[in-house]
Amino acid sequence: MVIQKEFLLKPKSRGFHLVTAEILNNLPELKEIKNGIAHIFIKHTSASLTINENADPTVRSDMETYFNKIVPENATYFEHTLEGTDDMTSHIKNTIIGSSIIIPITNGKFNLGTWQGIYLCEHRNYGGPRKIVVTILGQ
Amino acid sequence: MVIQKEFLLKPKSRGFHLVTAEILNNLPELKEIKNGIAHIFIKHTSASLTINENADPTVRSDMETYFNKIVPENATYFEHTLEGTDDMTSHIKNTIIGSSIIIPITNGKFNLGTWQGIYLCEHRNYGGPRKIVVTILGQ
Amino acid sequence: MVIQKEFLLKPKSRGFHLVTAEILNNLPELKEIKNGIAHIFIKHTSASLTINENADPTVRSDMETYFNKIVPENATYFEHTLEGTDDMTSHIKNTIIGSSIIIPITNGKFNLGTWQGIYLCEHRNYGGPRKIVVTILGQ
Repeated sequence: MVIQKEFLLKPKSRGFHLVTAEILNNLPELKEIKNGIAHIFIKHTSASLTINENADPTVRSDMETYFNKIVPENATYFEHTLEGTDDMTSHIKNTIIGSSIIIPITNGKFNLGTWQGIYLCEHRNYGGPRKIVVTILGQ
Repeated sequence: MVIQKEFLLKPKSRGFHLVTAEILNNLPELKEIKNGIAHIFIKHTSASLTINENADPTVRSDMETYFNKIVPENATYFEHTLEGTDDMTSHIKNTIIGSSIIIPITNGKFNLGTWQGIYLCEHRNYGGPRKIVVTILGQ
Repeated sequence: MVIQKEFLLKPKSRGFHLVTAEILNNLPELKEIKNGIAHIFIKHTSASLTINENADPTVRSDMETYFNKIVPENATYFEHTLEGTDDMTSHIKNTIIGSSIIIPITNGKFNLGTWQGIYLCEHRNYGGPRKIVVTILGQ
């Protein structure tokens, strides 16, 4: 069975956001799948998807702090900065973190670890809504 | 065909470990698949999976050295450090490296390059056994 | 339906290269798939695949500049340098960026965002042709 859906995630402030519930709200079909995978893809090059700790908000703020340090906006060696200092840095963060995640599905649910949740990583100061394509493959 | 299995990887010391054989030992079903993919997922936020060089152990020790430099435990800007200096840094390494890999299957075997092997990257000082979910999709 | 193909990407100079067209030229079968995913896998540990901005060449040159800064070839702490200063650094870049990407397929085409393209990231000074395995799963 293949199920594919496209939807928008609501605009988020710059930073790392837990979006497991917002994604699940768009996937009532998940309960039809006994075993399979869900591929969750973001159709943008300056916002990313990752899986990480779902409980303590300081994990998300520490992520934002860290990635700003490791991909510095005040670097003078970037040429692609037409849209601002958050332009090229967002593309780099996207390639480091990635534009898709894949989650196993078991008995109609995401088979995540106890502490795992889905993050939308918004790298732009004003990113707007973000387009998501989910493809579910399974039986 | 969909095959899904859940198993534990034995506890590893902190660092990068070649686990191709340990994973294959848990997947005798692989030989039933002519063409497909295997999604290998770790249900944790402080250990990662990657594919890299399978021959020289100094690649794995150099990886550990590098990621400790780039994600420094003595950074004073992390807030999420309740479980120790290896707490937040492990979450960051997990998001940089990733919680799943996908390998093509061809004629009943992982279709890896000559030098590719599967790494478990244990970011915690004492990580314990790690839960893995493998989903095989193919024909 | 499962379709699997193996082919070579032509040798590239060190750096980040847009290869969407070169990959599509190898996948005429894509038009048979209404909904599904394409897993694109590189069988090497010193070149990577990612998805990023498809329009401005300075994004690709800024990527090369950035990853050379963050994974420095003049670091004295690497042991695995037998093949040169671009040896261990290439393995690290491969683990940060990744050895595969997955793209949703919709109505016979890659369902990418307007600005998304596929990059081959060649980390070696002389990498040669690169082996790719594409597995398409869908209906």
